[in-house]
Amino acid sequence: MEMKKYIPADVPIGKREEFLKNFLEITNNTGRLMLFAGDQKIEHLNNDFYGDGIAEDDNSPEHLFKIAANAKISVFATQFGLITRYANLYPDVPYLIKLNSKTNIIPYSAKDPYSKQMVDMKDVIEFKNDMGINIKGVGYTVYLGSEYEREMLSEAAKIVNAAHKNAMIAVLWMYPKGKFIKDEHDPHLIAGAAGVATCLGADFAKVKVPLKNGEFKPELLKEAVQAAGNTGILCEGGKKIDEEAFLKELYEQIHIGGARGNGTGRNIHQRELNEAIKMANAIYAITCENKTLEDALKILRSQK
Amino acid sequence: MEMKKYIPADVPIGKREEFLKNFLEITNNTGRLMLFAGDQKIEHLNNDFYGDGIAEDDNSPEHLFKIAANAKISVFATQFGLITRYANLYPDVPYLIKLNSKTNIIPYSAKDPYSKQMVDMKDVIEFKNDMGINIKGVGYTVYLGSEYEREMLSEAAKIVNAAHKNAMIAVLWMYPKGKFIKDEHDPHLIAGAAGVATCLGADFAKVKVPLKNGEFKPELLKEAVQAAGNTGILCEGGKKIDEEAFLKELYEQIHIGGARGNGTGRNIHQRELNEAIKMANAIYAITCENKTLEDALKILRSQK
Amino acid sequence: MEMKKYIPADVPIGKREEFLKNFLEITNNTGRLMLFAGDQKIEHLNNDFYGDGIAEDDNSPEHLFKIAANAKISVFATQFGLITRYANLYPDVPYLIKLNSKTNIIPYSAKDPYSKQMVDMKDVIEFKNDMGINIKGVGYTVYLGSEYEREMLSEAAKIVNAAHKNAMIAVLWMYPKGKFIKDEHDPHLIAGAAGVATCLGADFAKVKVPLKNGEFKPELLKEAVQAAGNTGILCEGGKKIDEEAFLKELYEQIHIGGARGNGTGRNIHQRELNEAIKMANAIYAITCENKTLEDALKILRSQK
Amino acid sequence: MEMKKYIPADVPIGKREEFLKNFLEITNNTGRLMLFAGDQKIEHLNNDFYGDGIAEDDNSPEHLFKIAANAKISVFATQFGLITRYANLYPDVPYLIKLNSKTNIIPYSAKDPYSKQMVDMKDVIEFKNDMGINIKGVGYTVYLGSEYEREMLSEAAKIVNAAHKNAMIAVLWMYPKGKFIKDEHDPHLIAGAAGVATCLGADFAKVKVPLKNGEFKPELLKEAVQAAGNTGILCEGGKKIDEEAFLKELYEQIHIGGARGNGTGRNIHQRELNEAIKMANAIYAITCENKTLEDALKILRSQK
Amino acid sequence: MEMKKYIPADVPIGKREEFLKNFLEITNNTGRLMLFAGDQKIEHLNNDFYGDGIAEDDNSPEHLFKIAANAKISVFATQFGLITRYANLYPDVPYLIKLNSKTNIIPYSAKDPYSKQMVDMKDVIEFKNDMGINIKGVGYTVYLGSEYEREMLSEAAKIVNAAHKNAMIAVLWMYPKGKFIKDEHDPHLIAGAAGVATCLGADFAKVKVPLKNGEFKPELLKEAVQAAGNTGILCEGGKKIDEEAFLKELYEQIHIGGARGNGTGRNIHQRELNEAIKMANAIYAITCENKTLEDALKILRSQK
Repeated sequence: MEMKKYIPADVPIGKREEFLKNFLEITNNTGRLMLFAGDQKIEHLNNDFYGDGIAEDDNSPEHLFKIAANAKISVFATQFGLITRYANLYPDVPYLIKLNSKTNIIPYSAKDPYSKQMVDMKDVIEFKNDMGINIKGVGYTVYLGSEYEREMLSEAAKIVNAAHKNAMIAVLWMYPKGKFIKDEHDPHLIAGAAGVATCLGADFAKVKVPLKNGEFKPELLKEAVQAAGNTGILCEGGKKIDEEAFLKELYEQIHIGGARGNGTGRNIHQRELNEAIKMANAIYAITCENKTLEDALKILRSQK
Repeated sequence: MEMKKYIPADVPIGKREEFLKNFLEITNNTGRLMLFAGDQKIEHLNNDFYGDGIAEDDNSPEHLFKIAANAKISVFATQFGLITRYANLYPDVPYLIKLNSKTNIIPYSAKDPYSKQMVDMKDVIEFKNDMGINIKGVGYTVYLGSEYEREMLSEAAKIVNAAHKNAMIAVLWMYPKGKFIKDEHDPHLIAGAAGVATCLGADFAKVKVPLKNGEFKPELLKEAVQAAGNTGILCEGGKKIDEEAFLKELYEQIHIGGARGNGTGRNIHQRELNEAIKMANAIYAITCENKTLEDALKILRSQK
Repeated sequence: MEMKKYIPADVPIGKREEFLKNFLEITNNTGRLMLFAGDQKIEHLNNDFYGDGIAEDDNSPEHLFKIAANAKISVFATQFGLITRYANLYPDVPYLIKLNSKTNIIPYSAKDPYSKQMVDMKDVIEFKNDMGINIKGVGYTVYLGSEYEREMLSEAAKIVNAAHKNAMIAVLWMYPKGKFIKDEHDPHLIAGAAGVATCLGADFAKVKVPLKNGEFKPELLKEAVQAAGNTGILCEGGKKIDEEAFLKELYEQIHIGGARGNGTGRNIHQRELNEAIKMANAIYAITCENKTLEDALKILRSQK
Repeated sequence: MEMKKYIPADVPIGKREEFLKNFLEITNNTGRLMLFAGDQKIEHLNNDFYGDGIAEDDNSPEHLFKIAANAKISVFATQFGLITRYANLYPDVPYLIKLNSKTNIIPYSAKDPYSKQMVDMKDVIEFKNDMGINIKGVGYTVYLGSEYEREMLSEAAKIVNAAHKNAMIAVLWMYPKGKFIKDEHDPHLIAGAAGVATCLGADFAKVKVPLKNGEFKPELLKEAVQAAGNTGILCEGGKKIDEEAFLKELYEQIHIGGARGNGTGRNIHQRELNEAIKMANAIYAITCENKTLEDALKILRSQK
Repeated sequence: MEMKKYIPADVPIGKREEFLKNFLEITNNTGRLMLFAGDQKIEHLNNDFYGDGIAEDDNSPEHLFKIAANAKISVFATQFGLITRYANLYPDVPYLIKLNSKTNIIPYSAKDPYSKQMVDMKDVIEFKNDMGINIKGVGYTVYLGSEYEREMLSEAAKIVNAAHKNAMIAVLWMYPKGKFIKDEHDPHLIAGAAGVATCLGADFAKVKVPLKNGEFKPELLKEAVQAAGNTGILCEGGKKIDEEAFLKELYEQIHIGGARGNGTGRNIHQRELNEAIKMANAIYAITCENKTLEDALKILRSQK
């Protein structure tokens, strides 16, 4: 079967069936990932959850779990601790544990970032196996070009390997940052970052949207998609924008640019529950159900 | 039973009954915590225990244990080492081990703080189990925005998980600090800090009192209380103030702001023993016995 | 029995008898400690052992062992390595292993100090148990206010706990140091440092001599003695001074100030062997034999 | 047998036969190594794989594996993670895991480099043994003269020893770097770096090409070759240059300079697949088949 | 037997006979050590092995092993990795593994030195026991006064203890270095450094030659020799000088100054093989065979 090419060689032979089942389930047999990103409570403090243009629902952390439990998603990515607070109430959500996070209090211009692993993989495995939590994978951010790059490369490589040994997928957030990064949206730099994710063994790499003269064109993704080989490229969702524009861009990222999914947070959870669920379902339709943009817009505008 | 929602998912299935019993006992079935804070001997050296306006009793460390043993409290929070000095004499006190502390000698303006874990969780567990000490939980301070934030996020996440695996509660002191913090009493920043505690899996988060134009209003707590979800918010007690004002503020923090308790130190232990006990009992009455402000004031002014 | 109050709660129940026997033996049933300090070969290089006013004997490291073997002392405190060089010849000396040390080459004004643990506790325990060395306790210096304070707080807390688990006593040298210390002899600061030792679980805390306007009065010790609770305060001996003045100060530190012993090095070992033994015996008489100053002076001036 | 001299003494006696078999196989019984270097996706991001003068094939990471699988090589050196992505498809390639890598975002002039070990040797061994991957050796870069030199010396020494204990060869990239390096092509400095590799126990040392007045002469290698003793010297391939000049230089490095192989990346993989294979075969012919320059050029220009 | 005093107390009782046998064998029953120092390939890169005034033989690392195998020496001190390259050919050489080394690229004036342990003691023990290599001891350099002093004190103390637990001797190179060292040849400073070695438990301490007004007199060693107690003092050999002057100085260091040996490298290995062997034998004659200077000179000038 063609999807077997996505089984990395560090998955033990006795776990390959489990890995493949896991991979096919979360990608709905497409090899594409709809990652619902919910790690912003540490990354951006309360800015993404409370304020103008944000639904009141969003200030409760349970909002994220309600969306994850009721919408179609591949995985809900958030911190270990947050999962522990609500997983007993939402046991069926497919979780992806984001293993590192930092606040945005210190600006990048003042200090190169190092987002450190917060929970050991042995504790993740124990949580998954002994408490029976539905954990599908793990995630980690690497800030390339930071003076602490080496710590993150080293943590990332070990995390990916440990995930694979336990039949879990590994997603790396690959973000060039620091004093020597001139343009973090440069398509060539993004392709480089994507290639690093492949060299770290990642199943998926979440990257910045490539821009040329400040504008996105799906063709700009191609260098990165190719450089990443069989590691799938996910574009980050970024700030909340117009729904239709968002879905069109997503469709083109996948069908023109070759992206293998999307990591979206604010564009989903800043809406009230029903709207958030519909937005997630529309994104999932394009990403994992091979639906057209029109199909997706219908889902978005449906009454239920 | 409704209180079950407070059992985090990283408590092993075989320990959930013990965790819940522990949780109900210290919160007197209310889900609210009266934390008697006694970690200032490292944090503030001898400033809080000796000098003008401080009862002479307070210079003896045993004073803290006498209060903890004779007053109604949820837990007495202090360092591991101090507990070892007196726990044989005061075996029944419900202890919460504050795992990190730093002195106030280096000002925050000179150097970002990093308060490091002093005792390993395996030693805490051994102390609890083998020596039979009545340890209900552990605590740890996270200075968000410090250049050492990552070390504290990482230590905190592991500590919370280890506590839960051993049926203990975990309380995080969440204090934004460092060069890039403009106003540590900003309600939105405090809400962010509270949300981080939730993402670290904490059962309770102790935060600064939110102020607007330098003044506290209980409504200012609401953003943080909501952002923390099922992690309970405790306001710090701060410097000793007028008793009646203190209790009124506490009452409103709980009944208007939605706080789930209070962490109070100096406002209790800087009084002579009997007064300290009455003050603690009054605070406990409001926090864990659903008493009115008037009831609490009666306790405070009683003759015994 | 009253001395039981000195058994800390982290001594395992099965080891409490051994701890108490150990404690009573080294304190001669008084609860007071005569610590013969011999860690200066690292701390001060050869300055304290060779030069004007120093007996020639003192340049040989064996001099310290001869004193320790022939005088009355509670414990001889020095580094692990030095003990290994002579313990086969002096098996009966009660040793206290000073676990950290630094040279005085870098001045405090140039760099905050961090004196790091040199030997692991498991190696100390192995040395004690397998080689049958008479080790009564361990010691460690904490430089409060140093930018490395956190490392020392953390090492100290673990060392004290490990000592207690093995029925050994733990002595902490508590010295405020660094750019933000204005007066390391300030009685209030010393009381703070003493309180930190208690919070670290120490059995004894060695502190600087408190001074007011540059002068010592025994009353100045009281704040620290009280703040330390059941952790005993030892004043450091400091540079060699007139014998009679030294013994008088010691007597008053104990009987007026409430100190529970003394840590003395140079005032003993810089004398030739017989004089050193008599000085040690005189100090021991005051500290652990409840002798008067006159009795102690007689010992000092005896012919043998 | 003469090749036995290449078995280092830290290969366990029971593994010496396996080590020797491994060594002879990859060196084709010559003791010389043709290392196909493919670690540039981290080291140089996407610069070496996409752009002017680079075959389009090269932007796909699988290109490297296709070359490695179809050309004659001693080992294909790349990162652990990249190997995991394709080793199931290319199981027979002889791999050498490059254990550390860094990006080129921070220039050497701004900060001394430290390329940190990314994967533990126990995970490499597990990957080799349990998953049956054909791993022949490991590699690591040491930046001598960097302020982090000590970390790399320490990691390198342990890696070499762990490799030998598991019958694998160890190759060290020895590159002087940092503020105090005036000329990284100085033959005497390169000889020093080569000698360090020997002191770290390496089987092969990859060094910069020695230059005098900016020009390479094979004689310039002799000091380094001799200083390295039984550790073989490999010259780095560097940027893509004219094929014939490349092969001539290689031939002279080996037959005049005494090099024991070559580490070549860009000069191979920047060509389209067939050309890349022929170039690799030509290099292998000179290095491991004792062929003449003319023979090698014939291979290069053959039609198949 | 008098030599028993050299058995440190951390040698396990069951290993004392082995330690003593080892000690007597390498010191030829004299308690004095002739250490052939061959760690310069890392410390000085290729400067000591190639160039004017250096025999051509010396550029091959095997030269060191040929000397060690054919001359009389106590131990040959060099790095673990170098030993692994040649120990199969030279199995009978008595090795001492120098566990740390640094290059001389960064000048001491630019950065305080930290030479870090490169190989773990458990790997050394395994190498010694499982591969049957004739390892007599280990060595380590401590740079006192460096801002990294604490790391080296800590590594050194653990290394000495681990060596003794395995019946090996431990030699410490004690070199004051860094911004605050005014004169590294000051006899009083050297005595301090020697005393530190004793406090770290070393069997021998290699120190700088003490000078007064730039000149060596053997009497200048006495303070250090005495301060080191039963830790033997070795003077470093330094740069190659006139043979007769060298041997005279050595004789006086031992018979007037009280040194217990010498660590000599360049003065031996920079000569061609036969001359190097004769020089080593002459040094050994004075150090470990109680020969006169005249006897030693005869050995040096013999035809064989």
